[in-house]
Amino acid sequence: MAELQLTPPRKERLADKLYGQILEQILNGAFKEGDRLPAENDICSAFSVSRPVVRQALIRLQADGLVYSRRGSGTFVRAVPPSAITRFVLPSNVAGYLKSFEVRFALEAAAASLAAERRSSQNLHNLDEANELLREKIMNGQSPSEADFNFHREVAVASGNDLFVSLFEHLRGEISGSMGVALNLTKLGSDERRIAVLREHQQIVEAIRARNGEHAALYMRYHLVRARERITDAQRDP
Amino acid sequence: MAELQLTPPRKERLADKLYGQILEQILNGAFKEGDRLPAENDICSAFSVSRPVVRQALIRLQADGLVYSRRGSGTFVRAVPPSAITRFVLPSNVAGYLKSFEVRFALEAAAASLAAERRSSQNLHNLDEANELLREKIMNGQSPSEADFNFHREVAVASGNDLFVSLFEHLRGEISGSMGVALNLTKLGSDERRIAVLREHQQIVEAIRARNGEHAALYMRYHLVRARERITDAQRDP
Amino acid sequence: MAELQLTPPRKERLADKLYGQILEQILNGAFKEGDRLPAENDICSAFSVSRPVVRQALIRLQADGLVYSRRGSGTFVRAVPPSAITRFVLPSNVAGYLKSFEVRFALEAAAASLAAERRSSQNLHNLDEANELLREKIMNGQSPSEADFNFHREVAVASGNDLFVSLFEHLRGEISGSMGVALNLTKLGSDERRIAVLREHQQIVEAIRARNGEHAALYMRYHLVRARERITDAQRDP
Amino acid sequence: MAELQLTPPRKERLADKLYGQILEQILNGAFKEGDRLPAENDICSAFSVSRPVVRQALIRLQADGLVYSRRGSGTFVRAVPPSAITRFVLPSNVAGYLKSFEVRFALEAAAASLAAERRSSQNLHNLDEANELLREKIMNGQSPSEADFNFHREVAVASGNDLFVSLFEHLRGEISGSMGVALNLTKLGSDERRIAVLREHQQIVEAIRARNGEHAALYMRYHLVRARERITDAQRDP
Repeated sequence: MAELQLTPPRKERLADKLYGQILEQILNGAFKEGDRLPAENDICSAFSVSRPVVRQALIRLQADGLVYSRRGSGTFVRAVPPSAITRFVLPSNVAGYLKSFEVRFALEAAAASLAAERRSSQNLHNLDEANELLREKIMNGQSPSEADFNFHREVAVASGNDLFVSLFEHLRGEISGSMGVALNLTKLGSDERRIAVLREHQQIVEAIRARNGEHAALYMRYHLVRARERITDAQRDP
Repeated sequence: MAELQLTPPRKERLADKLYGQILEQILNGAFKEGDRLPAENDICSAFSVSRPVVRQALIRLQADGLVYSRRGSGTFVRAVPPSAITRFVLPSNVAGYLKSFEVRFALEAAAASLAAERRSSQNLHNLDEANELLREKIMNGQSPSEADFNFHREVAVASGNDLFVSLFEHLRGEISGSMGVALNLTKLGSDERRIAVLREHQQIVEAIRARNGEHAALYMRYHLVRARERITDAQRDP
Repeated sequence: MAELQLTPPRKERLADKLYGQILEQILNGAFKEGDRLPAENDICSAFSVSRPVVRQALIRLQADGLVYSRRGSGTFVRAVPPSAITRFVLPSNVAGYLKSFEVRFALEAAAASLAAERRSSQNLHNLDEANELLREKIMNGQSPSEADFNFHREVAVASGNDLFVSLFEHLRGEISGSMGVALNLTKLGSDERRIAVLREHQQIVEAIRARNGEHAALYMRYHLVRARERITDAQRDP
Repeated sequence: MAELQLTPPRKERLADKLYGQILEQILNGAFKEGDRLPAENDICSAFSVSRPVVRQALIRLQADGLVYSRRGSGTFVRAVPPSAITRFVLPSNVAGYLKSFEVRFALEAAAASLAAERRSSQNLHNLDEANELLREKIMNGQSPSEADFNFHREVAVASGNDLFVSLFEHLRGEISGSMGVALNLTKLGSDERRIAVLREHQQIVEAIRARNGEHAALYMRYHLVRARERITDAQRDP
């Protein structure tokens, strides 16, 4: 069985640090899909922390879909993020990107639902344009990160509630970063993956056009879950 | 039938302005529960705007639960906010407060669910303390607004994702304002209303204590819907 | 520490049987709030079953809010249902009642949301009448179980989709049973509890009246969660 | 503008009848995408019914995604179901199939979430087998309707709550019918459509395997929304 190579930290936020170190070793292939992580006690010793810290880190890795635990048998690596990811992002940033998805699930699903209810013809026009620009960037192999940010920002604008726009822009750093990673991976990926990304955006637009708030929220959540899995899981395609 | 007294504006954001003017006349009693608003065409003329602007304003009033429309018969006032509200807030600010609830529904329900999953003993301890402080303020008739903000902030902290805290603080202005209004109304209200506010906070804490994420999100949404209705609707008690 | 008194079964559905036996001992006070259940291995031996069976039963008790588990420290009793419950129901039936709530959360929240969208004036009239009848029964101390069933059935009818009615009636046995228990406990309980039950029904009606589907679903879920907790948890009042 | 050809009925359930007649004329091409339906008053006269009946029928057509209404301008045909549909189903049955989706959204999303929490290894094994059988049927061009029903039934079984199974079987008639239509349309459709159907089922299985209840519910809802749109909307592919 593989051994975790751990360096005891000096600083606070121990669980975050531990999360980052384990993530890094999953990213660089030291732990592979199906591998069992060391027992909690062993991680405690190796990392010089108490059990609550270890549990916190494991819960986060589990919430991020990187490991799963079986009652009584331990914690296992669920999926290895694509090694290509390391070309675009420091492992230590991945945690931040994944964290931004938790906020986006909540915020953007609500914004999409309201956008379907309230969007003006002008909002719809802007969404169509943003979507078209994104399509061109992706099909031409150009960096689509800004176009993607702009598309999601237009959904927030169409909600008619400017607080959604303001919060979305407050998250610009994390969101742009994670979009850059996800879309760069898409660029490297198969045609099927590119088409999936475009289809997901199109479904959001169509639900907003049809004024179907429930579907708009559903398609937004689906898109974000898929985008997140495109970062954490190379195997699942598209 | 009552007549809307409308002043044509010179500035942008016409729908927002129109929303504010109609709201003001509901607040000051010119339109009462069950009154029909003038036809869209008449509002267009009176306010010198096009129909899309009028529709946008009506949709917002409807979304805020202040009016309802019956297909083919028009738009009616649903509930008159308590006149006491005007002691604490300018009608022109009410719209902003109501808008903040839309964001909070999404953000705080997600934070509560994650808090139930991930909260440490320390998080729970802080929540209990924040809740106890809120109880004292309300029972002693002191301004509970800061204690309320702090309680909700502790839920965000317990989510283990600092982006929830950061966004929540970004909304501090709107949230504190709406809390001030809601809680001042509570102070003026019946004992039953005070007890309802405390029970709602307690239910959130208990669900987080029991690590039940689904219930934590449900109780948070319920609390926010009730808090919002305590602002827009004097009749429903508690 | 208390000891579980277990009788090895001869029949199938071992996890169900085990669930029932543990529940019974929580109901009759052999295990109290905060007590730790024996280790999984010990339950395996005492009940002559394999670990997956024990885990299945524990997961169900946890899902039913009767126990909670702390990673690494074991499983603890969360709340003792009111002893009064045993006047109205065999412990072996409680599991079935609790199970029916899982289905009702899904089914009735969806029906309430559609009812808000589609209800006719006649539907609303029938709902008001059913609600009024329920109020009388509860205030007069008569058995409200049939009136309660009828209220919830009217919500399903107002959804405009007769499959909701048909499924609801398919569950009549379990639902009536659990209503009988919950409402009998309410009758025994405080005035505050009675008022809470009536307020919850009223909130559902008001959201359907106001054609607010999101609120109707929320109030229905809240009501069902509270009703369920009135069965499993005597301490929380109302 | 096209004219609705309407025959006044003698029987009850007028809104249902009216829904069926309008649907039929959309299905047979008398009304095309973007066409405006006659005004409510004109439908009242042509069908000899009161306005509430007409509104009820229009709300249902809107809920089913077949028409949309613009405040003040009328009701328009949103999407024409594929004409191929008439090979497999009487227009008068389509309404029933669409109705079953409303129930399934609620019921199966809840079952999928619980399945992710509680599934045993045996449940997972059965799901994998049911999924594999469905894949073979679809790839070999055989009727996949029974295999599809069986897949969804296994999800209900894995929820560990037999009431989900019992309700699902209670709906067997409507569900099998709608599956037959949707999957026959898939058989006629593009490879891309077939692959989409298989991918959607696979995503549900993977979320249940990973014990991710939130994702399992999301993927189930997404699948059912897509399946429903494959019936009502020929243009959207896949």
